[in-house]
Amino acid sequence: MASRSRLMPIVQSARRPAVQHIPRPVNLKVVASAVASARQENSHCLNLTQSGARHLSSTPVRCAAGAIKLTSEAYPNVKRDERFARVTPEDVAFFKGVLGSGSAVLDGVTSDAADDIAPFNEDWMRKYRGQSRLVLRPQTTDQVSRILKYCNDKKLAVVPQGGNTGLVGGSVPVFDEIVLSLGRMNNIISFDEVSGVLVMDAGVILEVADQYLAERGHIYPLDLGSKGSCHVGGNLATNAGGLRLLRYGNLHGTVLGIEAVLPDGTVVDELSTLRKNNTGYDLKQLFIGAEGTIGVITKVAIQCPQRPKAVNVAYFGLESFEHARRAFREAKSQLSEILSAFELMDGRSQQVVQHFTGNTNPLDGDHPFYVLVETSGSNGEHDYAKLEAFLEDVMGKEIVQDGVVAQDETQVQTLWKWREGVPEALAMVGGVYKYDVSIPLEEMYKLVEDTKARAEEAGLLFEDLTQTEPNAEHPILAVVGYGHMGDSNLHLNVSTRTYDKRVEKLLEPFVYEWVQKRKGSISAEHGLGIAKKNYIGYSRSDTMVNLMRQIKNLYDPNGIMNPYKYI
Amino acid sequence: MASRSRLMPIVQSARRPAVQHIPRPVNLKVVASAVASARQENSHCLNLTQSGARHLSSTPVRCAAGAIKLTSEAYPNVKRDERFARVTPEDVAFFKGVLGSGSAVLDGVTSDAADDIAPFNEDWMRKYRGQSRLVLRPQTTDQVSRILKYCNDKKLAVVPQGGNTGLVGGSVPVFDEIVLSLGRMNNIISFDEVSGVLVMDAGVILEVADQYLAERGHIYPLDLGSKGSCHVGGNLATNAGGLRLLRYGNLHGTVLGIEAVLPDGTVVDELSTLRKNNTGYDLKQLFIGAEGTIGVITKVAIQCPQRPKAVNVAYFGLESFEHARRAFREAKSQLSEILSAFELMDGRSQQVVQHFTGNTNPLDGDHPFYVLVETSGSNGEHDYAKLEAFLEDVMGKEIVQDGVVAQDETQVQTLWKWREGVPEALAMVGGVYKYDVSIPLEEMYKLVEDTKARAEEAGLLFEDLTQTEPNAEHPILAVVGYGHMGDSNLHLNVSTRTYDKRVEKLLEPFVYEWVQKRKGSISAEHGLGIAKKNYIGYSRSDTMVNLMRQIKNLYDPNGIMNPYKYI
Ligand SMILES: Cc1cc2nc3c(=O)[nH]c(=O)nc-3n(C[C@H](O)[C@H](O)[C@H](O)COP(=O)(O)OP(=O)(O)OC[C@H]3O[C@@H](n4cnc5c(N)ncnc54)[C@H](O)[C@@H]3O)c2cc1C
Ligand SMILES: Cc1cc2nc3c(=O)[nH]c(=O)nc-3n(C[C@H](O)[C@H](O)[C@H](O)COP(=O)(O)OP(=O)(O)OC[C@H]3O[C@@H](n4cnc5c(N)ncnc54)[C@H](O)[C@@H]3O)c2cc1C
Repeated sequence: MASRSRLMPIVQSARRPAVQHIPRPVNLKVVASAVASARQENSHCLNLTQSGARHLSSTPVRCAAGAIKLTSEAYPNVKRDERFARVTPEDVAFFKGVLGSGSAVLDGVTSDAADDIAPFNEDWMRKYRGQSRLVLRPQTTDQVSRILKYCNDKKLAVVPQGGNTGLVGGSVPVFDEIVLSLGRMNNIISFDEVSGVLVMDAGVILEVADQYLAERGHIYPLDLGSKGSCHVGGNLATNAGGLRLLRYGNLHGTVLGIEAVLPDGTVVDELSTLRKNNTGYDLKQLFIGAEGTIGVITKVAIQCPQRPKAVNVAYFGLESFEHARRAFREAKSQLSEILSAFELMDGRSQQVVQHFTGNTNPLDGDHPFYVLVETSGSNGEHDYAKLEAFLEDVMGKEIVQDGVVAQDETQVQTLWKWREGVPEALAMVGGVYKYDVSIPLEEMYKLVEDTKARAEEAGLLFEDLTQTEPNAEHPILAVVGYGHMGDSNLHLNVSTRTYDKRVEKLLEPFVYEWVQKRKGSISAEHGLGIAKKNYIGYSRSDTMVNLMRQIKNLYDPNGIMNPYKYI
Repeated sequence: MASRSRLMPIVQSARRPAVQHIPRPVNLKVVASAVASARQENSHCLNLTQSGARHLSSTPVRCAAGAIKLTSEAYPNVKRDERFARVTPEDVAFFKGVLGSGSAVLDGVTSDAADDIAPFNEDWMRKYRGQSRLVLRPQTTDQVSRILKYCNDKKLAVVPQGGNTGLVGGSVPVFDEIVLSLGRMNNIISFDEVSGVLVMDAGVILEVADQYLAERGHIYPLDLGSKGSCHVGGNLATNAGGLRLLRYGNLHGTVLGIEAVLPDGTVVDELSTLRKNNTGYDLKQLFIGAEGTIGVITKVAIQCPQRPKAVNVAYFGLESFEHARRAFREAKSQLSEILSAFELMDGRSQQVVQHFTGNTNPLDGDHPFYVLVETSGSNGEHDYAKLEAFLEDVMGKEIVQDGVVAQDETQVQTLWKWREGVPEALAMVGGVYKYDVSIPLEEMYKLVEDTKARAEEAGLLFEDLTQTEPNAEHPILAVVGYGHMGDSNLHLNVSTRTYDKRVEKLLEPFVYEWVQKRKGSISAEHGLGIAKKNYIGYSRSDTMVNLMRQIKNLYDPNGIMNPYKYI
């Protein structure tokens, strides 16, 4: 029987260490091995040990390297749209006139800039590769406006690019589209400490914004594993969900204003900093989640909450998915307003992290499921009391088999890496087929089981993590599930030794059909990009798709914005 | 000096009485007069004493009655658009074919139904009166679709009407538009206790939805003084803000799905119940705040939080607006995740409530400003400790002059009436010019002062509450300010003995220019309707208005939806 003494608290913690150091409840035992494991962590190619801040480099460090297949080869059915012009030296001259000729224009048209341009052509997953020969890096909205207007007039296709961490191939060209990178539009414009409203350029890196806020007692309402690289503008463009959605809600609610540029150069000035502003249609909402298909987001105003003074993180092992579901119910009810994350990881995903980071799991033994629970609040003592009561309850009811609680900021980071390190660890292997779906909670994990069974049946699965070399017979190394359980959002990841058409056929449309049957969404938070363009019908009716096409045509009649993708 | 003993706690309370009864802190004194005042309350024409639930009747009971001027007379510049057809007996026959001939069709075209139709022609403020002769009351989406398609084909103009509590004249016809009332589409369709997602017809009354949720441990994320009458669909159509926005965010964030019908009869099926669904443009957002100008909302899916187990309400008197601002800062920082409302009322507004309800204010003496603070959380003991520490702090720092804390559910209601009773009490007088604006917090109250000074200068103000009879010389009885301070949202109300063009001239465009100068919003939460149609330019650029017109034309090319209003 799970007993309370089996709960190993590493300790109560505060992300802002100055505040709320709470005396440890005497009857909870600190287990040394768990603390030790925090120290053992090392990077193993992964950028997981950046001290203090969780970080992801935008140029992925990979053990398994190798060239990425051109998207045009991987998707032979997608043909270049010949309505689009090809970039000429005259075009380049125009852009240099707008941007200056320094590093703002990476010009592979009139010179050899292949190396400079390569990272802009390749996506984070190393699954998609475009053939752009021109990258533009404006610094002002006016420059963006002049660029887009020119491209629209000349029918030059454009791909807006933020931090290039997108997981659906949306941020890189398919053919020779011009890359419009927002990376140099990265100023924080203003912050109001009373209202909590932050205004900034679209190219500000999420983690930079959050650290800026941390120094001012506030927190960015969004948090992703990719925070060290992704842009706040890219987050809006993808309507990113992430780790704090459960607590702070989605971007449709927290974004107060945007500035954006339409293909014809029109600047959409909706940079309101008001919490309430009911004066006409809320057009900014269309840009949130539009994945760069109707315009370029150039500025963002967002409502930021007070930074919680105390953050507690617990990490559990559980016997079954049903137990995780029960734990979630209890957490929602008992932790209520201080619950800030409830993340699910299956046992396999934790083995993968352990294997590729070399870290020791803080819990003894193998558990079929793991859950990370985070609370954030203004009073550490109160929060800890609530968490403790919750832990006692779920241990007492044998919902949870084993668990640890972080004792300080470092341990908070350590525990989070068992969740946030999953995508990075999986990416070490070779290729990952990623499915980011919403499914009604009861059936959420069944998709992983059914997919695994399918891979086994097809004889494609060989689960030896030490064997990462290409293996023609058994391309699949692991079928894992993890995700934001609090939002019914599962990440099904099929990790392969190398991208393989047989695997893709095994998975698609199988996964989409499976999700459609449960009235789920084929894209919970990552978006459509090129990866899911053809599958939108599994989540949306023809009527809806037609209405969406109307919007696309309204704003981008020439179709120059991020073509071959989305709808 | 304000001392801690001057804080008169009526007591800590729980909206759900079964839970969390916390022992009273011994050193806080219960003052009898405050408790007594709760008992003295009586209705005085106002519907303020409904026990248990705060309620507003949809047919306003008024002391000062009298016929409402026709909108067409009050706005002589607005002419009937002759592109629209007039309703014929054949049209009525068609609608009876769709809806049946019972109470679903109030037919003033082929019969005398003036009395039945009157309430649908008149708005809650008794400021706008239309001349419709036909009210349609469908029960299904299919009926709505057939009605709209017919109207669109025949160019018959339509006004969607929810609970008819809107404050900008948007919900009633201007001329002979057909009223499409949602009142009979009022079923709750489903509720998921784990995810908290509620799905219902658009015509469900807000308070009914909230009570349904209360029985299931959840809470509707929106709360308005008009909750007893307004519809959840009307709330979406106006993007209502209200009392809980501070805590639970806005409808753009909390609404997960809608079903709506376009003028051509197309059913927009976006009734997703998923928390995350990034599959294409988020078109539902356009309907939130569209005030019935592009289609009719027929169903709503919304994310509902766990109902707080403990609710505490405190009511303060303060010396100045600056003190209220400081109190807000402290509340935000100290109460953080449990702060659920921070409402401001000026001294005058409380005098008006006192006068028209006959209730005794819970605080001794007159204070220039009053604030209502509400906390909601999962643990009454923790919440009360936080509130107490906050109260001690603001009393100690002399930010607050005097205060009471509610002791039970009844007292929570009693204190809330001092806030929620303001619009109703003002409406007792005669006419109220209502301005609902967002202004940067520092200057929020200055608008009231400047407006009052202007009224005094013009010699139009005579502040004797006992004199409510029309007074040609001094039409203005009171200039008051109150509102959602937590959202920088001020309600400036100018209470007149009778609607008077001189007052309107004094106020408009003065108020709008004033707000524009501070980059505020001329409509924070009430919307544009007919009242603010001509003033949108004060909050939005021509470019934005043109982009909005594009959307209107896209969905409603014949302009039949709620004409003469909005943009
Ligand atoms: C390790 C890891 C963890 C992740 N975790 C999460 C997660 O928890 N939740 C989640 O939702 N996502 C997650 N992601 C996916 C990704 O980080 C998000 O989609 C992120 O919001 C993308 O931001 P970006 O700046 O990198 O955009 P990019 O990848 O550069 O672009 C994404 C899309 O947005 C468009 N775009 C970018 N910037 C703009 C702009 N300024 N204007 C218009 N269009 C623009 C692009 O054209 C493209 O279609 C994760 C990714 C990684 C690698
Ligand atoms: C005492 C009082 C207090 C109030 N407090 C607040 C407050 O705190 N915050 C706030 O924001 N508002 C407040 N209001 C204003 C009002 O209650 C809100 O605007 C409310 O959301 C209107 O809902 P309703 O159902 O009454 O809509 P109605 O008044 O019937 O209609 C409002 C508008 O929405 C359109 N509409 C209604 N239903 C639909 C539908 N199903 N589909 C399409 N269009 C539709 C109408 O055409 C109209 O343009 C208050 C009003 C009163 C009288």
